[in-house]
Amino acid sequence: MSGVQIHVLCIGDELLSGNTLNTNLAFLGRSLADAGYRVRREICIPDTPEAIEAAVVAELAEADIVITIGGLGPTSDDVTRPVVARALGLSLRLDRGVLREIQAYLSRRNVRVPSHAIETQAMVPEGALVLPNRTGTAPGLWCVADTGKAVVMLPGPPRELRPMFLESVLPRLRRLAPPDRIFRILKVCGVPESTVAARVEALLPAFPGVSPAYCAKPAEVALRLCAPPDRGAVLAAAADRVREELADAVLPEDAPNLPAAVGKALRERAWALATAESCTAGGIAAAITDVPGASSYFAGGVVAYSNAVKLNVLGVSGATLHQFGAVSAETVAEMVRGVRRLLEVETAVAVTGIAGPDGGTPEKPVGLVYIATAVRDHVRVRRFLFPGSRENIRLRTVTVALNDLRLHILGTVGDGPSGAPGSARP
Amino acid sequence: MSGVQIHVLCIGDELLSGNTLNTNLAFLGRSLADAGYRVRREICIPDTPEAIEAAVVAELAEADIVITIGGLGPTSDDVTRPVVARALGLSLRLDRGVLREIQAYLSRRNVRVPSHAIETQAMVPEGALVLPNRTGTAPGLWCVADTGKAVVMLPGPPRELRPMFLESVLPRLRRLAPPDRIFRILKVCGVPESTVAARVEALLPAFPGVSPAYCAKPAEVALRLCAPPDRGAVLAAAADRVREELADAVLPEDAPNLPAAVGKALRERAWALATAESCTAGGIAAAITDVPGASSYFAGGVVAYSNAVKLNVLGVSGATLHQFGAVSAETVAEMVRGVRRLLEVETAVAVTGIAGPDGGTPEKPVGLVYIATAVRDHVRVRRFLFPGSRENIRLRTVTVALNDLRLHILGTVGDGPSGAPGSARP
Repeated sequence: MSGVQIHVLCIGDELLSGNTLNTNLAFLGRSLADAGYRVRREICIPDTPEAIEAAVVAELAEADIVITIGGLGPTSDDVTRPVVARALGLSLRLDRGVLREIQAYLSRRNVRVPSHAIETQAMVPEGALVLPNRTGTAPGLWCVADTGKAVVMLPGPPRELRPMFLESVLPRLRRLAPPDRIFRILKVCGVPESTVAARVEALLPAFPGVSPAYCAKPAEVALRLCAPPDRGAVLAAAADRVREELADAVLPEDAPNLPAAVGKALRERAWALATAESCTAGGIAAAITDVPGASSYFAGGVVAYSNAVKLNVLGVSGATLHQFGAVSAETVAEMVRGVRRLLEVETAVAVTGIAGPDGGTPEKPVGLVYIATAVRDHVRVRRFLFPGSRENIRLRTVTVALNDLRLHILGTVGDGPSGAPGSARP
Repeated sequence: MSGVQIHVLCIGDELLSGNTLNTNLAFLGRSLADAGYRVRREICIPDTPEAIEAAVVAELAEADIVITIGGLGPTSDDVTRPVVARALGLSLRLDRGVLREIQAYLSRRNVRVPSHAIETQAMVPEGALVLPNRTGTAPGLWCVADTGKAVVMLPGPPRELRPMFLESVLPRLRRLAPPDRIFRILKVCGVPESTVAARVEALLPAFPGVSPAYCAKPAEVALRLCAPPDRGAVLAAAADRVREELADAVLPEDAPNLPAAVGKALRERAWALATAESCTAGGIAAAITDVPGASSYFAGGVVAYSNAVKLNVLGVSGATLHQFGAVSAETVAEMVRGVRRLLEVETAVAVTGIAGPDGGTPEKPVGLVYIATAVRDHVRVRRFLFPGSRENIRLRTVTVALNDLRLHILGTVGDGPSGAPGSARP
């Protein structure tokens, strides 16, 4: 962690009235934490000049760096630029270079904007560093007060803020105030946080100076190994040893998330995938196709919400549905086989369950979910009882199904069927 | 709006490190705005006693009411209760009634917790009002300082905070500091914000004292009509007149969102629905089934990501795919007919498009989307060019498709087919 004191000032009525969820804070907080910094405080205020000026002055009294988000656009409620300049005692001047950048950006997109709206966004406080905006008009601005403290102004739209922060703000921060810790992050899927912690902490004594931190999400634990800056080699060795210990539970470094890791495993084998979903009703397919380029391995799927679809489209037998019910190991196994046959693919995943809030019984309560994966003729079935709301049960089902699928694919050696046909284990 | 000054203090390292998105602020902001109040400021701080105490004292200097969120649980980093009591100069005492409530809650769930963890959560500052927790253990606390200002402590888990806020905090706030405005909210779908504003503002002069506010989201504008408290009848008349003017563009009052409005329209007609999705890959089906009870009208669907699925499962003709391509009016019309036939339902919706970032051409750029809806044999097709990222294009496609479907169902009079078979208008 670095000792530099960073405060974030979010500007906008829409955050306080609940019209917009503050995803920018989460992005900044996570990006800074991954780089070894900490946000010490966040303040969210309306977009009035009085509120902004008072907050900038108050936060600068404690912080080394205040990052403001929002209020850099061309409209009358975008007042961050002049108010921050005034608070820092800096005058504003029109920057011809910035003006040309904005004009070029708008003309590439055939957008016509009144010239005063462009000029507003090209005003730069004296001495400020201009942070280029690749994906919008208003540039970011890194201003330094005579105390040496900095105010960094960033635009509010996430698609403008994110690349600007990663490309311009973070590298400069690293030069000016290098973190006193370095990091390696490993994403672990399908293993409870306490188990990850026990296995990691048994290994770490061999790597002096390396310490762990954990962040648990549904079906994923982000493990952050940190060490002093001069321990890079020890940190890398520790990360390799943890990766060896946890094996396939760790996502590959080039897969940012579970759907991407599934895609990578499929692409490496040139296999295609199909889905058959009841309770998640398309959620697994939607997650897989969040990844750009998923069309190279994802064929499609069937949302089998009603029994008629299970019967008539997926070919689940009426006897199975009658004897075991729609939410059963037998039905999910027939669903996964049915969709693999229908779409003529190597791999498939199927789910059926009771997401609630209604529809539960003592034998089959809300939260009961069966997940089946198929690699060629080899089918695996697992039974779960997920807690929580309808939303939570559906989300957990999606993530656990994706991880079961990933592990089934990774665990399949060679090119032939790796199990006897019909080896479902309900 | 009420003049009462409300500040929100969010407590937790996980918000500042980006591990948790601050959905509580959005919920409180929206709920308070809907009731005629405004959050003037939000602060997010780490869960250390020093940071919490300093923030409570600082915010109380300006605010009438400080709402704290988080830090009421049983673990060592849950320190909000004693720190706020100290900041207000109040002593803590064990509340036997609260203790029994917590014990009863845990025993109903067969959960065993060490008794000191229960007692921690049953400590109540002197004079505080206890806000019952229906969905968890730690109660909320409404404390009043000797200045008359209040600190309201709420638990961090959204499933505990939300009912407690709506059932205990808001009614008390209404009694203590009634808003000086009353509201009616209308959700308008499929009409641009500027058009809604023009049509609403042409009507409002007939309703003195009633003024509008707008909040735009993809494919939805929330229109908030407000008036002084003594203008209830005029406000109701204005809302009725706006509803008449905008007709089917306004969602019914008992449908909280677009998928629920689709469900209501289907349930009223006892019709079943099917989906055929290419670029959204299950997103429409997942949105429809976010609504509890969707199984009474949603049969299921086909995720036709590859052309093979469009051909072999949905029965799109090879000639159509070859001549017009997968992203075309002709293909989407055959998809919607195909899935309606396959699943034997009255209504269906189908989409095909290019979500990007790759796969665009000059003739068919990224963002090109075709949406088809079918009510019995009557098919409607619309073409769109959506801007923005892959994520945005997919989200817009889901919402516009749901609204097109809703309007098609609402616009269908009588019980017979309302259009000639094959009346697609690509």
